[in-house]
Amino acid sequence: MSLDSLQQGLNYRFRQLRLLQQALTHRSFSADHNERFEFLGDSILNMVVAMLLFERFGQLREGELSRLRAQLVRQDALQRIAESLAVGAELRLGEGELKSGGPRRPSILADATEALFGAIFLDAGFDAVRAVIEALYAPLLADFDPQRSLKDPKTALQELLQARRLNLPRYDLVETRGAAHEQEFVIACVVETLGVNVRASGNSRRAAEQAAAQLALEQIGKS
Amino acid sequence: MSLDSLQQGLNYRFRQLRLLQQALTHRSFSADHNERFEFLGDSILNMVVAMLLFERFGQLREGELSRLRAQLVRQDALQRIAESLAVGAELRLGEGELKSGGPRRPSILADATEALFGAIFLDAGFDAVRAVIEALYAPLLADFDPQRSLKDPKTALQELLQARRLNLPRYDLVETRGAAHEQEFVIACVVETLGVNVRASGNSRRAAEQAAAQLALEQIGKS
Repeated sequence: MSLDSLQQGLNYRFRQLRLLQQALTHRSFSADHNERFEFLGDSILNMVVAMLLFERFGQLREGELSRLRAQLVRQDALQRIAESLAVGAELRLGEGELKSGGPRRPSILADATEALFGAIFLDAGFDAVRAVIEALYAPLLADFDPQRSLKDPKTALQELLQARRLNLPRYDLVETRGAAHEQEFVIACVVETLGVNVRASGNSRRAAEQAAAQLALEQIGKS
Repeated sequence: MSLDSLQQGLNYRFRQLRLLQQALTHRSFSADHNERFEFLGDSILNMVVAMLLFERFGQLREGELSRLRAQLVRQDALQRIAESLAVGAELRLGEGELKSGGPRRPSILADATEALFGAIFLDAGFDAVRAVIEALYAPLLADFDPQRSLKDPKTALQELLQARRLNLPRYDLVETRGAAHEQEFVIACVVETLGVNVRASGNSRRAAEQAAAQLALEQIGKS
């Protein structure tokens, strides 16, 4: 009865176990898979996290709230929640997916976590799923410093490397495209000691550097 | 007491009128403006429309539901709702915005509508705002044909032009960028009789054409 421990982790007990089972079913396993639940759960998660940030950070502006939310609902955050719940062990995957490491794949874990939220909503309504999401996000929000999270990516990357006593990143202009009034810059952000070499483009050199730094942060965060 | 008629249109009566007033306040008018409410309302709208589509179209897949939702929550849909509620007449705008047509500007109307949803949620909770959104979207959903809405943009554009007895659009390859295995195509979609000339890019010629057709549809829809 291992679904018991997942329900314990969620601090929620399903009335309709078939909803829980469908939330854990990858499309490689059965036609009754979790993708529609994921659609619903994604929108519920976005809304509940919006609400939590709105209530908690009364001084932040719309754009800041949006950026913070994006960080809290993106794949790596959901993957961590899935791992804390040991969702991977309960997933129903086709054989191919099972053999190729599906139960540990970040996208599959994140999708199933969203599907779980959708299933709880279908099982018991908004207040139930809101309580579950609030409880799961409480530890993330407890030591959440919006000022740190709102730093621009270049600054954040620099500080992260300094904290690890590594050399600063290099930003190389790879290419400039387009006519003079609508130029597009392609910048590579290189952190040699970590094997990072990512590219991003932007309408200005600065914008492209920030976008590349963001990609570098994400790659370092995942490794 | 014109806020009365807006509340009648919403079929919702605010307990805290200051929330209604803030939802109608543009940042050009006061520091207590509606942008934080808009952040909240946008996420609520996305979730409620996701729920409505999920319930109503049991046979559609996640990607189809996402595309339909995008159509229902985008600016022109919100603008129409705002106009049906005569939101423009109640907006509190700075003088510059007032003089330059702010009360009729689609983005200002759409943002205020989302802010109204956020304000209702703050005033009375989820069930109240869900009922308001459901009622406002009932006419849109009543004659909503997902198959028509899910047609690919090129087909939809062709049919729209044929219905108006206009010449078919022209798709011109403007540019091909990148190395052979990661080429990017830039396509212009031209509808001369309507003065449409828009560009989009994609990883294949077909994808770029579809993206350009979508932009053309949006431009024609707005005019």
